[in-house]
Amino acid sequence: MAFILETVVTTRNADGSHHLAPYGLIQDGEGYVIAPFHPSPAIENLRRRPFAAAAAPVDLRVIAGAVTGRRDWPTVACETIDLVRLADAFGHMELAVESVTEDALRPRFRCKVVHSASHLPFVGYNRAQAAIIEGAILSTRLDLLPREKIEAEMAYLRIAISKTAGPVEQEAWGWIEEKIRDGLGS
Amino acid sequence: MAFILETVVTTRNADGSHHLAPYGLIQDGEGYVIAPFHPSPAIENLRRRPFAAAAAPVDLRVIAGAVTGRRDWPTVACETIDLVRLADAFGHMELAVESVTEDALRPRFRCKVVHSASHLPFVGYNRAQAAIIEGAILSTRLDLLPREKIEAEMAYLRIAISKTAGPVEQEAWGWIEEKIRDGLGS
Repeated sequence: MAFILETVVTTRNADGSHHLAPYGLIQDGEGYVIAPFHPSPAIENLRRRPFAAAAAPVDLRVIAGAVTGRRDWPTVACETIDLVRLADAFGHMELAVESVTEDALRPRFRCKVVHSASHLPFVGYNRAQAAIIEGAILSTRLDLLPREKIEAEMAYLRIAISKTAGPVEQEAWGWIEEKIRDGLGS
Repeated sequence: MAFILETVVTTRNADGSHHLAPYGLIQDGEGYVIAPFHPSPAIENLRRRPFAAAAAPVDLRVIAGAVTGRRDWPTVACETIDLVRLADAFGHMELAVESVTEDALRPRFRCKVVHSASHLPFVGYNRAQAAIIEGAILSTRLDLLPREKIEAEMAYLRIAISKTAGPVEQEAWGWIEEKIRDGLGS
């Protein structure tokens, strides 16, 4: 068991553009492990150019968007590595890959934190944002879980949305609900 | 429906000590509403001295501790108001009460943000921390909910704990599980 941080990770594509996707970074001492599932552009990107930036989004539509085909979010230049990071972030880390453990399913890129910074004070936790993260993960596992379990979990998560979401979180939740409704064919 | 931030709020007691407790701050334009349920030391404190500090804990044992009788966490002085705030915080806000809406159940203290600051980069969301917040809230509602619902929600939340908690989050979760086990008499 390890402490895992859900972040929005950017890497550099071969054509110079960037790849932006959410990853759970596994804490490993002072560093973090990025372990994307095959196939992922992030795997080839990290092999070619062993740097990544990981950011905590302020707007959770970035996470909901990543699982519903909306990945065009503004980025800004990193401070110590030649890469971009998600612009709208509470804070971010700049990571350099130190070693790779090969694996047919999930190669593990062990990274050192070369820089981190705050951009906006994080002054409290929002339960709706946490529900969006859970719903986004759930929406990628529709083929693996029984329909009743998916519906029960969505009903539970909807409570935090109804009590603590602002308009942005409601929109993000709507995207996830639509995907799950379509995926279940209901 | 409004955006609500779960924070650790400090206010000044009549004897000069401080009261520290988690509150969900309701966003209201540029400000926030603190609405403690009667009876609460925070209500008398805010009437006597209309200032509060709200912090996002790094260590969620502060939240789990608040609902399990462990409230002695280090504080430091605020920067612009004569009050203390939780020391171990990603960020905090200093709040001044602008108006009070009386209510027999939940008076509403509408606050202006007079200062906010970052103390540690918030670089990602941890699902176990979110589960601890949900479990902590659940543990205060044992008399209001059917036992099956409580057990089902705890079983669901335990998944995020088992997948993403570090040692600190495991300890916080253990406190909540113990309280709920005792409360249910199981």
